[in-house]
Amino acid sequence: MIATGPTEGPPLRIIPLGGVGEIGKNMTAFEYGDEIVVIDCGLAFPDAEMFGIDLVVPDVTYLRERKEMVKAFFITHAHEDHVGGLPYVLPVFPGVPIYASTLARGLLGNKIKEHKLHNNPILALEPGQPVKVGAFEATGFRIGHSIPDAMGIALRTPLGVVIHTGDFKFDHTPVDGKLSEFHTLAQYGKDGVLCLMSDSTRAENPGYTPSERTVGEAFRDIMDGLPGRVIVATFASNIARIQQVFDAAATFGRRVAVIGRSMEQNTRIAAELGYLDPPPGLLVPKDRIKDVPDNELCIATTGAQGEPMAGLARMANRDHRFVEIGPGDTVIVSASPIPGNEEYVARTIDNLFKNGANVFYHTIRRAHVSGHASQEELKLMLNLTKPKHFIPIHGEFRMLVQHGRLAAELGVAPGNIFIIENGQPIEFFPNGSARRGAAVESGMVYVDGLSVGDIGDIVLRDRRALANDGMFLVVVTVDKQSGNLIGQPEIITRGFVAAPDDPVIQGAIQRIKQSIENPGDHIAESALLKAQIKDGLSQYLYERTRRRPMVFPVVVEV
Amino acid sequence: MIATGPTEGPPLRIIPLGGVGEIGKNMTAFEYGDEIVVIDCGLAFPDAEMFGIDLVVPDVTYLRERKEMVKAFFITHAHEDHVGGLPYVLPVFPGVPIYASTLARGLLGNKIKEHKLHNNPILALEPGQPVKVGAFEATGFRIGHSIPDAMGIALRTPLGVVIHTGDFKFDHTPVDGKLSEFHTLAQYGKDGVLCLMSDSTRAENPGYTPSERTVGEAFRDIMDGLPGRVIVATFASNIARIQQVFDAAATFGRRVAVIGRSMEQNTRIAAELGYLDPPPGLLVPKDRIKDVPDNELCIATTGAQGEPMAGLARMANRDHRFVEIGPGDTVIVSASPIPGNEEYVARTIDNLFKNGANVFYHTIRRAHVSGHASQEELKLMLNLTKPKHFIPIHGEFRMLVQHGRLAAELGVAPGNIFIIENGQPIEFFPNGSARRGAAVESGMVYVDGLSVGDIGDIVLRDRRALANDGMFLVVVTVDKQSGNLIGQPEIITRGFVAAPDDPVIQGAIQRIKQSIENPGDHIAESALLKAQIKDGLSQYLYERTRRRPMVFPVVVEV
Repeated sequence: MIATGPTEGPPLRIIPLGGVGEIGKNMTAFEYGDEIVVIDCGLAFPDAEMFGIDLVVPDVTYLRERKEMVKAFFITHAHEDHVGGLPYVLPVFPGVPIYASTLARGLLGNKIKEHKLHNNPILALEPGQPVKVGAFEATGFRIGHSIPDAMGIALRTPLGVVIHTGDFKFDHTPVDGKLSEFHTLAQYGKDGVLCLMSDSTRAENPGYTPSERTVGEAFRDIMDGLPGRVIVATFASNIARIQQVFDAAATFGRRVAVIGRSMEQNTRIAAELGYLDPPPGLLVPKDRIKDVPDNELCIATTGAQGEPMAGLARMANRDHRFVEIGPGDTVIVSASPIPGNEEYVARTIDNLFKNGANVFYHTIRRAHVSGHASQEELKLMLNLTKPKHFIPIHGEFRMLVQHGRLAAELGVAPGNIFIIENGQPIEFFPNGSARRGAAVESGMVYVDGLSVGDIGDIVLRDRRALANDGMFLVVVTVDKQSGNLIGQPEIITRGFVAAPDDPVIQGAIQRIKQSIENPGDHIAESALLKAQIKDGLSQYLYERTRRRPMVFPVVVEV
Repeated sequence: MIATGPTEGPPLRIIPLGGVGEIGKNMTAFEYGDEIVVIDCGLAFPDAEMFGIDLVVPDVTYLRERKEMVKAFFITHAHEDHVGGLPYVLPVFPGVPIYASTLARGLLGNKIKEHKLHNNPILALEPGQPVKVGAFEATGFRIGHSIPDAMGIALRTPLGVVIHTGDFKFDHTPVDGKLSEFHTLAQYGKDGVLCLMSDSTRAENPGYTPSERTVGEAFRDIMDGLPGRVIVATFASNIARIQQVFDAAATFGRRVAVIGRSMEQNTRIAAELGYLDPPPGLLVPKDRIKDVPDNELCIATTGAQGEPMAGLARMANRDHRFVEIGPGDTVIVSASPIPGNEEYVARTIDNLFKNGANVFYHTIRRAHVSGHASQEELKLMLNLTKPKHFIPIHGEFRMLVQHGRLAAELGVAPGNIFIIENGQPIEFFPNGSARRGAAVESGMVYVDGLSVGDIGDIVLRDRRALANDGMFLVVVTVDKQSGNLIGQPEIITRGFVAAPDDPVIQGAIQRIKQSIENPGDHIAESALLKAQIKDGLSQYLYERTRRRPMVFPVVVEV
């Protein structure tokens, strides 16, 4: 059917505010009449060119301008790229409830406490139990992912059901035994799905993603008969992975110490809520590991991405309080490097080998599987739900393109497949048609230190310039009457060249003197003298060094 | 045999100065008595933390201090990571000859011209033709790699033959028909090899690296029946790859335009020397491509690593003089992203898709193979040459470890396998033993603009600080007699916050005034006042923002 515009009643608008055309900071708004509900609100980590930025969160200008319309946040699971934006966004929406499943509520509660956000009630959204918010009704369905209790959300709207998969894979042998809800998805497909929004992270990968259970088998193979300590580094939130470390260690009579702030916190919460089940006597406090013989000890820790401040890197650099890794130790890096982290991971692995440890890592023994669906699973999702329209989400643009191709192969009408970017609404009309709406404001907001949003592109451009060529500060004192230089120019450089006796510095001083001695017509204006010094000096420095430090002239008139 | 130290005569010392424990800037020195010869002298590209650095070259302090001992540079092939350091190193060694094969001499000649280096003769080192330099005799042997005329070098020394593979793979169906010299290697093995130094780049990869010829098959599959233009991006130096673009294009009646400075230059030199053979009438000048119908045009260009200034990225961004890529175009990215370049490559591919082009890239259709040997080829090299000692080279530390394990599996005595880093000499003695010598000075020298080596770790540390949090410059004028502030402090920030009316700036001004009004005991000393302003301000800014900009106080006394 060709998109023909509205016939009667308001349209349903799906507005991606994050995670579409990029990896990270997932967020989607659904608007019908004067009501908006939101699925997820994540963060992203800065790329290499975002100097000094700590985090990136979605630009929610569109929602801020419609504050009173926002009725609820629904959470698919408690990974940072789905909930990490909440602490920065919630203050704009006091009183708006957050709906999440049990484990997500547990992990979120901690986050709310840390950020002192108590104005938003956290309410239950459990699989199969519909929650009605205005014209919307949200029902979670259980789905496989690298954290327990992950859900997709079926959002019933006046114009039909939208299926939002969240992050997912179809794991036929999940560690916690809780299967993805194949039957629920099949039923939705039978009843009719207006639109499927599906995870594209691994849309480039043919075949199936292996079961999480295969990782446990790899752990056992590696630990079997090993005489020394085993250190397993993985993601702090991957509770199923940590359970498998526990199980493998128990198989070989090893006790386990969990080390690393976020992992200790997550395992505590997960164990309290019944999502993690360490056999009695298995756990050993980190300050007691010296009492355990090497061949009876297993350490689970953070830092599988090589993060310099996390457990593994510090153990490898021998500056960790409780553990130094050395000869006789075996390390399992249970992760693949996330794009951008390759150098960190490589450095950490090299340091471990240099310390004499043996290391199993992604290219040598894949003690890791992805939490995201590969092509055959994506096809299964499409064929189970049989959507009329399809919006691939959660992925860089090229992944969305590949996912869109899969949908077309399976018979979704090419005109009903929307390969879009953040801020591009899709509007669904009562006559069953859909079309692209006018783009809304969207993008990224930088978090740097305590501030959110005050860093813009100009600040980043300046940081880039300073990073590349440093700065060159010159202070000159001139006689107000005569315009003559008094004393010598004072020069301070950082990130340029170190030596004050460098010929370049001497040449620069000559050049500054020339600027002052040949002042042109406008000597009276110190702003013009500044500009003259800056231009002359910049040109001189570029000619001599092929570098462009930021030049700051300070002219003092006495 | 256990290493027992010298018995009679001088030792042979093998001294890795680059490429051992890292990827890039390959360089090895061989020292016997008072003579040194060097194999290769490459460059590396800076990692993400080397702000503003253009290139990295080996630290040759050890050679500089023994200038008169250095007799020759032998070149395995003309890739930048093997010859790119020459322009920065040669000025230290005027008159010392460079030996290289025909194509390498052609490409080097250009480099010498560009850098105005005419003090070093470039002489022939052709496969199978020994060159005697003092106590050494070097013989090149042909080996497969991603540039024609690549060689390994058999270095005959008074203590035995050392085989240095250079970069290599064993390609049984090379595009130019010139096989690796299996028989020569077998003969060396039969006669006895003192030490093998072998390429570890792909030591983590099981099996065999596919033949370069498979890439030509992929090109043909993609081009078959295609209605629009084809743009193939690859490495400018991969002459065999470019030949395959020519051949595939010719198969389907397409003409080829080569676009990109380095690729145009390399193809011209390679064609002149007979290493590239475009069928008559195939080539079309870049300013004439508008005259060729889309389905009869193929463009070969640079930028397969997503480099922002190279051909492909500019065509994708629509700011290329001759080509804008859009709907109907098909792009083949014939490369895998080198670690560190993933983000660039991803961005370029996304831009191409957004422009409406179809793109074949590393995860979708592997129109690329590595030029480096996988494990089964590395084993073949070890078994052909049967070395007594083994030094894995060209690779990060973990790759050297894996390569060392392969050698041990094949029967090289574990005590004769040296997993080392740059600057760690291995000494071979007349009694057949070998051991680690005392480490020599080595490492990296930064090239930034016109300067080589004046950028050190302090400059980089400052650049990192400026990149992360920017700078904060404050100029205050005080009365020399009273110490009172005159006028208002002037504040200039870059990379910090932009708005001069920001409350943080107002607070900072108050803090500066406090520092001046409560000067402590040492008012007379403007250096102390500066320190006081700096400390107070830094503390204030950190408390308010959790950022640490570099603070520069300028105190003017009048």
